[in-house]
Amino acid sequence: MAVTGDLVALTAIEAAEKISGGELSAEEYVGACLDRIAAIESTVHAFVHLDPGEALSQARALDERRRNGNAIGPLHGIPVAIKDIFDTADYPTECGSALLKGRRPMRDSTIVARLRSAGAVIIGKTVSTEFAYFHPGPTRNPHDLERTPGGSSSGSAAAVAAAMVPLAVGSQTNGSVIRPASFCGVYGVKPTHGLISRSGALILSEALDHVGVFARTLADSALILEVLAGYDPNDRDTRPVAAPNFLERLAEDPPVPPRIAFVRTPVWDTADAATRSAFEALAGQLGDSVVALDLPDSYAAGWDDHRTIMAADMAHRLTAVVERGGEGGSSQMLRDLLAEGSKVSAMRYLAARDAARRYRLGLDEIFGEYDAILTPATMGVAPKGNATGSPAFCTFWSLVGLPAVTLPLLNGEGGMPLGVQLIGQAGDDARLLRTANWLNGRLAV
Amino acid sequence: MAVTGDLVALTAIEAAEKISGGELSAEEYVGACLDRIAAIESTVHAFVHLDPGEALSQARALDERRRNGNAIGPLHGIPVAIKDIFDTADYPTECGSALLKGRRPMRDSTIVARLRSAGAVIIGKTVSTEFAYFHPGPTRNPHDLERTPGGSSSGSAAAVAAAMVPLAVGSQTNGSVIRPASFCGVYGVKPTHGLISRSGALILSEALDHVGVFARTLADSALILEVLAGYDPNDRDTRPVAAPNFLERLAEDPPVPPRIAFVRTPVWDTADAATRSAFEALAGQLGDSVVALDLPDSYAAGWDDHRTIMAADMAHRLTAVVERGGEGGSSQMLRDLLAEGSKVSAMRYLAARDAARRYRLGLDEIFGEYDAILTPATMGVAPKGNATGSPAFCTFWSLVGLPAVTLPLLNGEGGMPLGVQLIGQAGDDARLLRTANWLNGRLAV
Repeated sequence: MAVTGDLVALTAIEAAEKISGGELSAEEYVGACLDRIAAIESTVHAFVHLDPGEALSQARALDERRRNGNAIGPLHGIPVAIKDIFDTADYPTECGSALLKGRRPMRDSTIVARLRSAGAVIIGKTVSTEFAYFHPGPTRNPHDLERTPGGSSSGSAAAVAAAMVPLAVGSQTNGSVIRPASFCGVYGVKPTHGLISRSGALILSEALDHVGVFARTLADSALILEVLAGYDPNDRDTRPVAAPNFLERLAEDPPVPPRIAFVRTPVWDTADAATRSAFEALAGQLGDSVVALDLPDSYAAGWDDHRTIMAADMAHRLTAVVERGGEGGSSQMLRDLLAEGSKVSAMRYLAARDAARRYRLGLDEIFGEYDAILTPATMGVAPKGNATGSPAFCTFWSLVGLPAVTLPLLNGEGGMPLGVQLIGQAGDDARLLRTANWLNGRLAV
Repeated sequence: MAVTGDLVALTAIEAAEKISGGELSAEEYVGACLDRIAAIESTVHAFVHLDPGEALSQARALDERRRNGNAIGPLHGIPVAIKDIFDTADYPTECGSALLKGRRPMRDSTIVARLRSAGAVIIGKTVSTEFAYFHPGPTRNPHDLERTPGGSSSGSAAAVAAAMVPLAVGSQTNGSVIRPASFCGVYGVKPTHGLISRSGALILSEALDHVGVFARTLADSALILEVLAGYDPNDRDTRPVAAPNFLERLAEDPPVPPRIAFVRTPVWDTADAATRSAFEALAGQLGDSVVALDLPDSYAAGWDDHRTIMAADMAHRLTAVVERGGEGGSSQMLRDLLAEGSKVSAMRYLAARDAARRYRLGLDEIFGEYDAILTPATMGVAPKGNATGSPAFCTFWSLVGLPAVTLPLLNGEGGMPLGVQLIGQAGDDARLLRTANWLNGRLAV
């Protein structure tokens, strides 16, 4: 029988196979993850709510179901960590805010319900920055405790990176999945806007919010995306179309060698010198597969359009609760943003929303010719200190709602991980994963 | 063979049957309508673009197609008048504004393309108020030339009322289908928001704009709605679901006697005394089928929410073109609205959009118990003079996007027509038409 150390090194797919085949019980596997958490949580601080008894009881119930010959789902017995902005009926959901201390939702969010239906164990709730915005929580980067894990899905990224769990769910309004995944050296996927329901989640901006996932392999990302994707009448940005079979598509060979557009973007100069040269080298290494491409000049306004929409939508959503909390209840950073958002005019807001649509239509042309856009995930490796780092390399892709994945293929300062971001065509998340898998094959050692 | 006078009295369904059976040619029928237009257009002023030669040439081509044994559509040879805010490739589209004088679109709007595919003859473009807002065009009410036909779909309502055409298309952002239909004594239908595509139409507000229809019978309304309804990838408020068979549903007997909620609404006191007593009498006449019901008090804010959304959306859409035109290019009324809209904050706008969703959800409860809401279409009969009258009895139903139909069942001052408005559940336009047909049977003489 496997020892604890071995078990937490399993991928979700390996563990699910062993559990499905009876080689491993959900209780043993969840127990191994809980042991790992117990050993390092006091230094990493990934979780805000954790109830080992409740997690083990879910696992035992799943083992019982399997023993009784019931059908089992694709995540049967797999522990998944959930960012604490998604409602759970069994744990509090506090959204990283003192104002919501002790809040206990009545019902699971749609993504939690889907995970449970697939047999997952909801192992606990992970640290989010305050209201999924910038003010950091206590989580540290498992690769270097002096550094930030990034935000806002800080705990989810750190928990996967530290092998506390094989899978975690986060969210991205600006750069909150791709950035912490890059900083923590794991795979992060922010799928097409509307692929995954946000019903029962903290909403900052319906236009910008995406549910995303963290895993230590691309195939594990595909496994959980397949469970999460789908139409939900309670999220009007989801669509009543069948979700693709991500795992199957991921494993396919591309019919022709993918063509990649290397897009530096208007924030290129904000990346540090090491990152810039790492990406130039990477593009060079890929040879004919990669062509450098500039976005149209007008797209530089996209960063301000994103800021406008985010500030106005968050002011709309959060002003009442933050005002009730007074000055002590929230960070100055958040209150400043809400004040900024309250000053946005409807005309400016609507113009920014229209601009986002125009950028998206324009990008469709690129995807007529290229399979994916290659660009940095972050300006560099995770910075030291508390600040969660800049989302600038994610902002534009959140604005246009295109699927993005970051691959932990590079290393920077101090050996810290640095993500390689690929962007795909809206709605074609499966092709993006296939292209990412191809890139992995080309570059992985 | 029928004489001209008889032909224009035909319903669209009757005419389509005769044309389909070879008893009448499209050329004869369109010719009869053109004769009728020639006789009275100089007093009614329903059309802004009319080219009899072009209309007859469409009709002859349709006759030729039928003679050659080709399949024919449900509107084969039926002339339809189009509000001049819908793009047409064969006529200018000027949206009632001097600023767009001579504008010639390259392509048909989706609704015009759908009509052509169904065999309709696009007979001409009808007068719209300036940018489908309040500033009136030259159209007069066929029942009394001293009175307004209502707006903004002035020409479409008047053309159907004057038997120039059996069918016409209009649009409603506030009360621009239901009000002119009520004033002109014809059936008007404003279907569920998103049932009919607005691609290629002047957009004032994606949230509030609806395509609607005018006809002299309910069955004719159903006939054209069936042609117009449907998913259009170019209008993201349309849905990829099959449109119902309106004609078939209309003719069904309700499985149980419909229950009607008589809703006076917060604007009840703005209706004139004759209208209020006519509706009280009507509700009484329907006996047990009707129950008086009040909307929740909070819904009174809906009228201001509508104004907020309309002003901000129109400021977003029209400010640039109106500013280019200077003071002489547009009405003071329009410029005042745009100035008002430019001052709306994004937070106020987003709150109004949220409120509209809340009202709609609340109304769903009413439709769990009632088949339709009964309420006046207008404050009273068409007023004298140029002003197009108040849309107040339509405003709330435009805000929430519920289907509305007005039936020309009452008469008021000077024998002028007065519409009876029924509101149905979102998405169940077919049931609303069936209920309207039942009401017709109960009340028609």
